[in-house]
Parts: sequence; structure tokens; C-alpha cells
Amino acid sequence: MSALPLHPRFVSLEGGEGAGKTTVLAALRAALEAAGDEAAGSEIVVTREPGGTPLAEKIRALLLHPGEEALAAETELMLMFAARAQHVRATILPALERGAWVLCDRFTDSSYAYQGGGRGLDAAFIDVLEQRVVGLRPGLTLLLDLDVAQGRARIESRDPHPDRIERERGAFFERVRQAFLARAAAEPRRFRVIDASRTVDEVVAEAVARLRAFAGAA
Amino acid sequence: MSALPLHPRFVSLEGGEGAGKTTVLAALRAALEAAGDEAAGSEIVVTREPGGTPLAEKIRALLLHPGEEALAAETELMLMFAARAQHVRATILPALERGAWVLCDRFTDSSYAYQGGGRGLDAAFIDVLEQRVVGLRPGLTLLLDLDVAQGRARIESRDPHPDRIERERGAFFERVRQAFLARAAAEPRRFRVIDASRTVDEVVAEAVARLRAFAGAA
Repeated sequence: MSALPLHPRFVSLEGGEGAGKTTVLAALRAALEAAGDEAAGSEIVVTREPGGTPLAEKIRALLLHPGEEALAAETELMLMFAARAQHVRATILPALERGAWVLCDRFTDSSYAYQGGGRGLDAAFIDVLEQRVVGLRPGLTLLLDLDVAQGRARIESRDPHPDRIERERGAFFERVRQAFLARAAAEPRRFRVIDASRTVDEVVAEAVARLRAFAGAA
Repeated sequence: MSALPLHPRFVSLEGGEGAGKTTVLAALRAALEAAGDEAAGSEIVVTREPGGTPLAEKIRALLLHPGEEALAAETELMLMFAARAQHVRATILPALERGAWVLCDRFTDSSYAYQGGGRGLDAAFIDVLEQRVVGLRPGLTLLLDLDVAQGRARIESRDPHPDRIERERGAFFERVRQAFLARAAAEPRRFRVIDASRTVDEVVAEAVARLRAFAGAA
């Protein structure tokens, strides 16, 4: 286990497909905005991975729609960390340094889950990349955990054009879920696992409560 | 020093700007073709880095023309190895496995020289990437070595629109040159250093002789 700094105003949201990340992210932003109004306006930066800068969004486009060519697992891993290297240096660190909150839809844990658990790449190598290229972790990571079949049913009902990763098989997403849960178990101080099988209102309420507790303790 | 396999039909050409790589590469191909005619047609694949597959060429375009955004050194390194990961798996290994010769304009040594020597990134990290993502080295690497000022004078006379890397300062290219020479000194079995300050005919003649000696010994 590495000893990267956990940043007290950096929050990531993780989870599989269909777990409700988009809805929860909007609620987390609203909760921070309400708290900021009371405390005379802290800036809030909401961002996502892969992406979060113009160049990193171009890398995201290559990852999700690479064309006819089969993307090697190692290529995918390098592109994810290319986007993340740029995102950290051009968006996340400058925001944290000027005192903003950063809410990020996926961060390095997703590489351990998708490229590590899902694709079978060695977690020890991903750890080297995290140390060398990323250099920090969120202070709080909310993991929206959901049964794979339930998550797939939710996204299939809403998206007729799945991207390259959404088209993977169920066994892939089961490995992703288990890798996320293993990371959460290994870092209980940073992670909060939220049962995303409940109603949207219940999931949002727990996520917001977890964020408020974290922000209040900071 | 790592112990990656050196492939007996894989040849890379390295060197700074203006050293004559394009001309030498065409001559190397012609020499292999002439030898192949005698030996009943071996296939010859001529390729380049960053690039060498449709996806890797898209990554090359991001590297050379990233837009307004300043590309972080770590982003550049990850993109170089993303392109290389794909190039090795989609182009180089399949070609070597079907018995072809592969002539490559730049390979991993360029990352040690440009991202390591030039940008100052740690060679030990680049070594990890080479081990994990690349997994092989050329059997022969021809390094066209040239005084930096002489090389710059050559390219400035021919190219009015330099790319992002060509616009670097002289001290950057001096570090690149020294990193290439250090790699050549450390691996004398694989490298041949060719003095590229001489006439084109002399440089081509030496490169072709070095390739013939290597191919004859294989």
C-alpha cells in the first residue's frame, strides 16, 4: 500500500455502470454550494475522468471510440494515465491550490478496477503509475456499489448506443465490482461504500450525508 | 540494465533532428529488398514512432499538435508509451512473427532520450514502462549522431513550420544527444553510432554496411 497524500478538498465518486453517479454528483455539488453560501463562497470544480481538460477529452474520445482497431489493454492503461497526468496538472492541482473543492467523476481507483480487475493488468504496475504520474488521492471516495445485472438493466433501458467499455460482458463488470470493493476494504479511512440498489433518494441522501461529515471534519 | 529480448529481424534508427534519418531509412529498405530478392522475398515492414497504426498515428497527432494546452512531461511520456504499446502489438510483433524484417524510425530509445534526457523524467520509470508495455528491443539500433547546431541548421533550412518538439531550445537537444550516446555506450552489442556530420553518401554507406553485417550474422 502506497502512502500518497489524501487531499481534504478532493472527493471522487466511483462505481459501475447504472449506479447513479450522474445524479449523485449533481446532488454533491448542490450540497457543497449550499455550504459555500453559508461560508462565503468556496469555489467548486466538478470534473470527470477520463477527461477534464481539452486534451484529456480528446484522449477520452480515442478511448471510447478508437475506430476499427482493437485497443490493447496496455494501450488503454497508458491512455488513461496520459489523460489523468494532464487532468491532475492542468485542472485538479491548480483548483486545489486556489482553495477550491474538486468533485471528480471517477479517478485512479477506476484504473485499478477496469484496467486491473477488468482487463487483468498487474495492480503493482498500476501502483507505480499512480505514484509517478498522479501523486495524490482524494480525501474521500464514495463508491456506489450495485449488483452487476441490476446496473446493466438500468443502462440498457436508457442508452441504445453503448460505448466500447459498456459493450463488455458481465464477467468483466463483476471483476470490476470486486476490484472496487477490495480497494474500499483496504482503505476504509478514504472509502465510503454506498448501497446503490436502493431508491435514488436514499442513495443521494447517504452520499450527501457522507460528504457533509467529511467536509465538517476537515 | 534490463534483460529484454533483442529481436534479430528488428532494426531501429535513432538520432536527433536533421541527422538524415529519412534518407538512411529508404537506403536500408532498399538494401534489405536487394538481399530479399536474392533470398526469395522476405517481407520488409517500414514503420515509425510515434505512430505505426491508425490509432497510434492519432496519438502522434495529439503529441505534435496538442492545441493551446501545455502538455505536461508526464502526459507526453504516457502518450508515447500508449502509441508504442499499440504499435508493438498491432504492427511490430505480428510482422516479426510472420518472418518479416521490421525497420522502425525511432523506438523506445527515443523515450529515454527525449522524455528522459530532454524533459528530465526518471530513466528508472521509463525502464519500468519498457519492461511492462514494450517487452522487446531491436537487435540492431543505428544511432545517427550529429552536433546539435549542425542538425538544427539543416532542419531550419527545409521546414518553415516546426512541430511542438522541433521548437524546443538547443539545451534540450543537447541533453537528448547525450542521452542517446549514453545508451549507445551502455549497450555496444545492440548500438552502432554513425557520425552523421559527413556527406549523405558516406552516412548511407556506413548504415547499409552495418545493416548487412547484422543481417549476415543473424
